[in-house]
This record gives sequence, C-alpha cells and structure tokens, in this order.
Amino acid sequence: MSRLAAPGELGIVDVGTLHTEAGARIPGAQIAYRRWGELHGLESGRTNIILVEHSLTSGPEADEWWPGIIGPGRALDTDRFCVVCTNSIGGFHGSTGPSSPHPEDGRAWGSRFPGISIRDQVTAELAFLDALGIPAVHAVVGGSMGGARALEWAAMAPDRLNAAGVIAVSARASAWQIGIQAAQIDAIEGDPHWHGGDYYDTGHSPREGLATARRIAHLTYRGELELDERFGVEAQTGENPLGPYRDPQQRFAVESYLDYQARKLTARFDAGSYVTLTDALNRHDIGRGRGGLNRALSSIHVPMFIAGVDTDILYPYHQQEHLSRNVGNLLGMAKISSPVGHDAFLAEHRQMDHVLRRFIHLAEESVHGNAASHFG
Amino acid sequence: MSRLAAPGELGIVDVGTLHTEAGARIPGAQIAYRRWGELHGLESGRTNIILVEHSLTSGPEADEWWPGIIGPGRALDTDRFCVVCTNSIGGFHGSTGPSSPHPEDGRAWGSRFPGISIRDQVTAELAFLDALGIPAVHAVVGGSMGGARALEWAAMAPDRLNAAGVIAVSARASAWQIGIQAAQIDAIEGDPHWHGGDYYDTGHSPREGLATARRIAHLTYRGELELDERFGVEAQTGENPLGPYRDPQQRFAVESYLDYQARKLTARFDAGSYVTLTDALNRHDIGRGRGGLNRALSSIHVPMFIAGVDTDILYPYHQQEHLSRNVGNLLGMAKISSPVGHDAFLAEHRQMDHVLRRFIHLAEESVHGNAASHFG
Repeated sequence: MSRLAAPGELGIVDVGTLHTEAGARIPGAQIAYRRWGELHGLESGRTNIILVEHSLTSGPEADEWWPGIIGPGRALDTDRFCVVCTNSIGGFHGSTGPSSPHPEDGRAWGSRFPGISIRDQVTAELAFLDALGIPAVHAVVGGSMGGARALEWAAMAPDRLNAAGVIAVSARASAWQIGIQAAQIDAIEGDPHWHGGDYYDTGHSPREGLATARRIAHLTYRGELELDERFGVEAQTGENPLGPYRDPQQRFAVESYLDYQARKLTARFDAGSYVTLTDALNRHDIGRGRGGLNRALSSIHVPMFIAGVDTDILYPYHQQEHLSRNVGNLLGMAKISSPVGHDAFLAEHRQMDHVLRRFIHLAEESVHGNAASHFG
Repeated sequence: MSRLAAPGELGIVDVGTLHTEAGARIPGAQIAYRRWGELHGLESGRTNIILVEHSLTSGPEADEWWPGIIGPGRALDTDRFCVVCTNSIGGFHGSTGPSSPHPEDGRAWGSRFPGISIRDQVTAELAFLDALGIPAVHAVVGGSMGGARALEWAAMAPDRLNAAGVIAVSARASAWQIGIQAAQIDAIEGDPHWHGGDYYDTGHSPREGLATARRIAHLTYRGELELDERFGVEAQTGENPLGPYRDPQQRFAVESYLDYQARKLTARFDAGSYVTLTDALNRHDIGRGRGGLNRALSSIHVPMFIAGVDTDILYPYHQQEHLSRNVGNLLGMAKISSPVGHDAFLAEHRQMDHVLRRFIHLAEESVHGNAASHFG
C-alpha cells in the first residue's frame, strides 16, 4: 500500500474511474483526505481506522469542524485510532468535483460533472480504501450529509466496517428537505453567472446565487430559539429597518448575520460543488432498489448508533427515531438537547463528546462480543 | 353612517389620510371589505361585529379561506353576528396598496407606498370603522398576520372590542421569521423586473422573484410531515430527477407542487403588496415603545383567546405559550394538532370550528360576566 499522508496533512489519492449509480463516468477521480493517529491492523484485515464523514460544505479538516473531538485521549482517540476524513467526490476540498480540471482537456468539469448520489460518494470512498490497500475500517461516523454516507456505508459495504455512527440524518430525503434544497439549487442555477454550470472560465461566478442559497440553508441549520436569543428584532448597528420607507440597505441584525454567513461561504466554496452535493442530498434514499425503506434498513446488520437533535427542523428527531426502529442492529441512540437546531451536532461539543465516546465504546463492545461468540 | 355593502359583496370605504407609525402619509386611502350577517347594536355603542383578519396573501373573502366557518349556525354565526373582513392597507384585494393609483397622478404608488407596520394596518381598520360610524366591534379574530393584527387591536384600541382571538402568531417577529421573510423579499427585490418597486408601467413584473418567494414561504406554511406523506421522494410524472446529469427540468414531485403553488400566487397577487406585507410582519413587535414585550402584553386587558399549531415551524407553539403566560386577561388557549404545520389554522376545519366556537362562547361569557359585575 501507499503511505498515508503525514498526520494532519492533506493527501490526495488517485482512485481511477468512478461509475455512478445513474450510469455516468468520472475518469481520473481523486479523493483528498487528512488523517490523525497511526494506522494499525492492516495485516489482520481489520484496521483501527475511524472514517469521519463531513457535511455539505465542510471538508477533511475534521479537527477544525469537530474541535476537541479528535486527538490523544479525545472521544475519537488518536492514541488508539487512526482517524481519517475524506473529502466527498464532487466536493471542493481537494477531491474531484465540478471545478476540477477534466482529464481530457484540463478545463473545469463544469456541467460535464455528473449528478451523484450518496451511494456514489461511498463508492468513491471504497475506491479510496482500495487504492490505499486498506481492506476495512473500524467505524464510519458522520452527521448530516456525513450521516447519510455512514448509513449507506453500512448498507453497501457491511464487511468493511464494524460499526456506523449516523447523526442528524434520515433514511431518505423528505419532501420538505427536497423542497428547501431545490430552492437553494434554483437560486444558484438562476444566477446569470451560472452559465449552465460552465462559468469557470468566464471570469465570473454565481456568487449572488450561492449567497442566497446559503442564507436559506443557514436558517435550516440553526434553530429559531438560538437565532432569536442572539438577534431577536434588533436592528443592525447604524441601520433602521423600521423607517418610513422600505430600504434594503436598512437591515435587522439577523439579516446582517445571514449576509455575513453568505459572504463567508462564497469566499471559500464553489457554487458547482454546492449544487452537486445538494443534489446528492436530494437523491438520498436508502430504500432505492432495495425493496423499499424499511426492508432496506432491516437488512442492515452492521451495528449502528443513531443520534439526533431535538430542535432540528431539517432532519427532525422523529426521522432518527424511524431509523432506530428499523435498522437491523441498533447499538444505541442519543438525543442532543439544544436550542441550536441541526448544527448542534457540530456546536454542542460537550454533548457530542459524550455521544461519540458512547458510540465508540458500544462499537468496541460489539466487536468483542462478536469475537467471543465466534471464537470463545 | 353609510350603509354596509350587501352581504358577501365587495365594499370600498374611503378612510382619508393615514399617518404611519414611522412618519409617512397615505392620502386618499381606501379599505375594501366584505361582510356576512346583519349589523346590530349601533345605538348601544356596542355592535355584533366579528372582525375577521386575513393572512398575508388572502383578502376579505373569509368565506373562501375559512370554508364552513362563517354562516347561519356556524362557528362565526351570521344569524347572530355581523362578520366583517377587511383587506389590509397595503394589500391587493381592493384596499390601497403599492399597485393602487396614487391620488396625485393616478400612476401606481410603487416605491412611494410607505413601509407599514402591523399597527398601521390596525390604524387603517380603526379609520375604516370611523368612516362607517361604527364605535366598536364585539370581537377581532385572525391567524398568522391576521393574528398579529388581532393582538395589536387589543393593545391599541381596548375600548373598541370585547375580545380578541389570536391564532398562530407571536408577540413579535422572531429572528428566524425575519431571516426567512427577508430571503423572500430579497428574491423579489433582486428580480430585474422589480425596478425598485416601480415596475407597474414597464409592461413587466417581478414574477420570477415572487415565485421564488412563494416556494420558500410555502415550505414555512406546510409541515414536513404532511408534505412527506404526499410527495416523499417521488419523481414528478414523466420526469427523472435521478438521471446521470443534473437537469432542472427533471423534478421531484414536491418541486412540481411548489412550482404550481408559485404560479398560482403570481397569477393572483402583486409583488409590491407581497413585499409591503412581508415587511410589516418583520416589523411586528407588540413591545415597541411600550416598555418591552412582557410589559406590553401584561397591560393588555382585553379578554384574549390564543391558539396555535403543534407542528408550526413559522410561529412555533412555544410562542403562543409565551403569549398566554403574559397577556393580562387570558380567556383560554387551544392547541391545534396536525401534520399540516402553520396552515393548519386554515386547513383543519373540524378543529378550527371547535376552537372558534369556544372562543366565541368564552368571549360572550366574559361580556356577560363583566355586565353582571357592573350592573348586576
């Protein structure tokens, strides 16, 4: 096998040609990743890898978006585990996506980049492990889009992981999610700078559309309780949204905050990747081609830990309860209690530390239990 | 007084010059209305009017948007009450709004129409009653923006009503509401056909922006449970949103449904009124200039009945609980249980019939109780 990138450094792995679920090809695909902790167990066919799956616009910098979770003695303990975080195919943190050079002409893939599903993201990760000569991982864990990938991992490659941690996600996209996510895609595709996805050499980008998408998305990530505690009906400093005539320059504080979030995203993320990954979320359906939702879930025998957030409006907690009732081998379940909403799986560090320690503990118990029954 | 319009017919009342809370003027203002049932009690200074307040894009056709609620023997019993429904100032159902001819030049008000608050809407209704020589009404009731007006009625004109029915609304806009409503306003103001609000004689209108606004708004009106029951991840008939390449023409069923809702609205409603009334919702704050939220609420001594919907994400039920804990004279409270979300106050006819009958009963009991203690 090739050597892993140095701890914390960005590595890039060639994974060859990917074939998507819908029948397209991605030749010359690359997957970017970072890792923390040393890899063990290759010889036994089982490794100590914990594969961490990022959400929509984040990347392999799991130490940044899950601060305090990864490290020596932490919930994801790098004294014992090799924590690996790959960037999704289609993403914008080093893996091949719409903004990457196409192998044939070196110009951006743009509209030539196919529509991908959550399953295609997992296919790419399995190819990534193959390329590195890694037969299996210990666990796969993630929240939101990362949770969807962890769930598909358990369905697609049950022999290649011991346990899955599925956080703040559902068995499939809901109509509401598709609706609000389609509104975000529409905002980008309706931007005159979008050019059907082929804007990369025009000197412009659909920044305004992406900003609009982010403003809407952020309101699905953040609970209304938390937003209201912070901003209420306050005016932005120096502005007056209560004037005699409406003026878009006179904003409430929450509008300014959402504008700031939008600017932050447009400065660091690509609109093409945003559309591709949001479309992948819309395609999320664990039951597709597997006899329906609950049959598919009940056939998943990988030990699974499920967590959700009580105030999540994007992936409401009843969706995690549905998962927990139907998966074939439930390790345990946790409810994160927070005013923050969906993003609590990133923001509530104390609770997430607890949830992830419990997941890792139950996953190991499950492995040892199985070992005992097999060999004891 | 002038005679009321015939039952069910649209009437228009000149209310003179309105002065807005923020210091602008609306000369030559008119308020449109419909009524059902005969007016009694003018001589006593108390009338049998139940003033029904519509929500954002509806109008005085309360018999249409509250079907089965208004009529002989119904919850709002026209054998006993005169049910009146006015169109909000700024609206698009006959009252003066951005699309109306300005009295000075006959051209549309457009950007000359001022920003209005919920209080300005009530000011216009009080002027409407003055113009008709009606000193007081029996009750004011409404949901959503109509609920905000009912609440402000109780704060602004306590001597002119016996009771208020406040449904699916809050004491003030929340930061989340402002955020999602600002996104809708942005979509309209960002449409190239908006022309700063002065599009009325351009031969174009910001239909696309209004359609986008409606798609987003509809997702705040409808509960995700109900949408998911109806549409799930189904593809629109004849379309394939799971194809090898993303294609905006290939939609999920829920996308098609939202497009249909958007087309319905753009065919019947004006973008200028949509911006004006949405901005009014953002300005909703019962505490402004009254010593803060809870002081303002506790000083309201008009008997008040409060109802909300358990699955409402736009005006979550805890906001109605907050109202009920703080108003000075709570008649009662009701929780509408429904997968429909916010719109349940329009859609759950059986429950709304029950809620409104209870409100009317308690309001009358309260009047008789007061009469007994005053005169008994």
